[in-house]
Amino acid sequence: MKKFINDPNKVVDEMLEGFLAAHSDMVEKLLTSRVVVRKGAPFKGKVGLVTGGGSGHKPAFIGYIGDGLVDAVAVGDIFSSPSAQQIYEAIKAVDSGKGVLCMLGNYSGDIMNFDMAVEMAREDGHRVEQVIVNDDVGSAPKDKMENRRGVVGEVILWKVAGAKAKEGASLEELKKIAEKTIFNSRSMGVAHSPCRVPTAEEPTFTLGENEMEIGVGHHGEPGVKRMPLKPADEVTSMLMEKILEDLPFKSGDEVVVNINGLGATPLLELYIVYRKVHQILKDSKIKVHRTYVGEYFTSLEMGGFSITLTKVDDELKRLIDAPAKAPLFVQA
Amino acid sequence: MKKFINDPNKVVDEMLEGFLAAHSDMVEKLLTSRVVVRKGAPFKGKVGLVTGGGSGHKPAFIGYIGDGLVDAVAVGDIFSSPSAQQIYEAIKAVDSGKGVLCMLGNYSGDIMNFDMAVEMAREDGHRVEQVIVNDDVGSAPKDKMENRRGVVGEVILWKVAGAKAKEGASLEELKKIAEKTIFNSRSMGVAHSPCRVPTAEEPTFTLGENEMEIGVGHHGEPGVKRMPLKPADEVTSMLMEKILEDLPFKSGDEVVVNINGLGATPLLELYIVYRKVHQILKDSKIKVHRTYVGEYFTSLEMGGFSITLTKVDDELKRLIDAPAKAPLFVQA
Repeated sequence: MKKFINDPNKVVDEMLEGFLAAHSDMVEKLLTSRVVVRKGAPFKGKVGLVTGGGSGHKPAFIGYIGDGLVDAVAVGDIFSSPSAQQIYEAIKAVDSGKGVLCMLGNYSGDIMNFDMAVEMAREDGHRVEQVIVNDDVGSAPKDKMENRRGVVGEVILWKVAGAKAKEGASLEELKKIAEKTIFNSRSMGVAHSPCRVPTAEEPTFTLGENEMEIGVGHHGEPGVKRMPLKPADEVTSMLMEKILEDLPFKSGDEVVVNINGLGATPLLELYIVYRKVHQILKDSKIKVHRTYVGEYFTSLEMGGFSITLTKVDDELKRLIDAPAKAPLFVQA
Repeated sequence: MKKFINDPNKVVDEMLEGFLAAHSDMVEKLLTSRVVVRKGAPFKGKVGLVTGGGSGHKPAFIGYIGDGLVDAVAVGDIFSSPSAQQIYEAIKAVDSGKGVLCMLGNYSGDIMNFDMAVEMAREDGHRVEQVIVNDDVGSAPKDKMENRRGVVGEVILWKVAGAKAKEGASLEELKKIAEKTIFNSRSMGVAHSPCRVPTAEEPTFTLGENEMEIGVGHHGEPGVKRMPLKPADEVTSMLMEKILEDLPFKSGDEVVVNINGLGATPLLELYIVYRKVHQILKDSKIKVHRTYVGEYFTSLEMGGFSITLTKVDDELKRLIDAPAKAPLFVQA
């Protein structure tokens, strides 16, 4: 896995330098910490929205800092959590007095550091709540939902919370809609080729020449099953079966669909996957409200994709449909 | 190179089925031909904009069908030109009486088929002009510009022409601004790993374990030089030197920059590349008007990237900055 980088230990800082130079009209870095904030933050009358996590998932996380999306991101090293101090700085930077909602994926490092940061911020008098995304059906059975990882459900949450915060919602209202969004979102991924962290000698996992892994995590965490690569329709059906039965999604439901490339999978293939998803939903009498197909939360150059369904009601539809503008996510 | 596909001979049709299902609010397929058109076309009072080419370059070409962008795309098989008949149908579908501008990359198959289609359409009484994009500095020396391939310059052209057509420009005005955009755009690519066409046994090219190829084409066409993989800054400097001296771009110029991933190269790396591009432009006293970083014109899962600079004046800046909305390109 060849890479266009300079020093493997500097990839995050150099990436950030390029990102800030490219998008200086929308974002800036805090002077004292590796935290990227929306220009003009904090915004009076608006709850601040903070997220953060490891790097290597672009467009997540920093690509979603913007109007109708999040206000600050604490930027970790590749596939590792930002520090509690960074998250604390992010919270302070975006609190206009109306409080801050922290949104994170269910990973032990992130949870530990967000917990500490929230505590520090509360001691300073900030009103802070946090919600933890755990949409990845492949990462634990339903009776152990608390062990499930957060994946593209995070993107959906940022979109919903960003729109709701822009409407002037209170911290309590935001936490409530965030919890609904998380509860209504289910994802499942598959990969046929790994990625490699720049400082590592070896890829994140290895697979046989004709193998794939169902349920694989965004950092190469083991999935539920390893098997020979199947045709796209068969793979899609397997993932959809797990997703649909989990919530469960039922006839008459409306959903937002996200087909997410993990890094090296061509859009061409993602649309072949969506073709089957669309057929399955039609057969199940589940209505598609909106479809996203593309790279929304990647794992460097991993070859694979994930499917995310979010069950939506009128409020979620309105919030998901609202315009948004960030460096790597624009909806008009 | 494993793929999430079904039948290798059906990838384009199945992709298209998924694409049309996902974006039925914006695009539709002609009943009689593999041509995708913007919903509501032809648009009264607006010149129709047609492009087309091989599949496998997504978001190009069909991802750019929309408001402020192109009106119709003739969809070829993977890396091969659409037929003259398809292009002819595309022209007919979007001509509101104000004429049609065809925009294509400089590839022999595309040129042959567009030429035939334009002739057929003219015989039917349509006013049609065409422009050929040849921005790839790596594909031929400057004294053989007519041999140069078209790459991301096509995307810039679609953006400019789309905005200009929306303003109500005449066919002659459109052709003129298109020619200026093409003349002002220069690109250069590099790859360290190939892609594989689904129906092929072998990848489009092979490189040694630590090699890269400078000037590689969007279909794996040979570049100008093969050498050991260098650090990102060095690769970027090599590409920028060729680009800058070619127009040439000079101190005081303003440019739009596009850093385009070819398929499998993480955004993280593209921003490391942009960091260096930004430094070089600053040192050269060339002002960056706008920066695009992402996947704009890919080659399936090729590992590599291209840099495109377009020299802009006030008119080009206005047109590039105008809002646009298509399935895979939104600017607000």
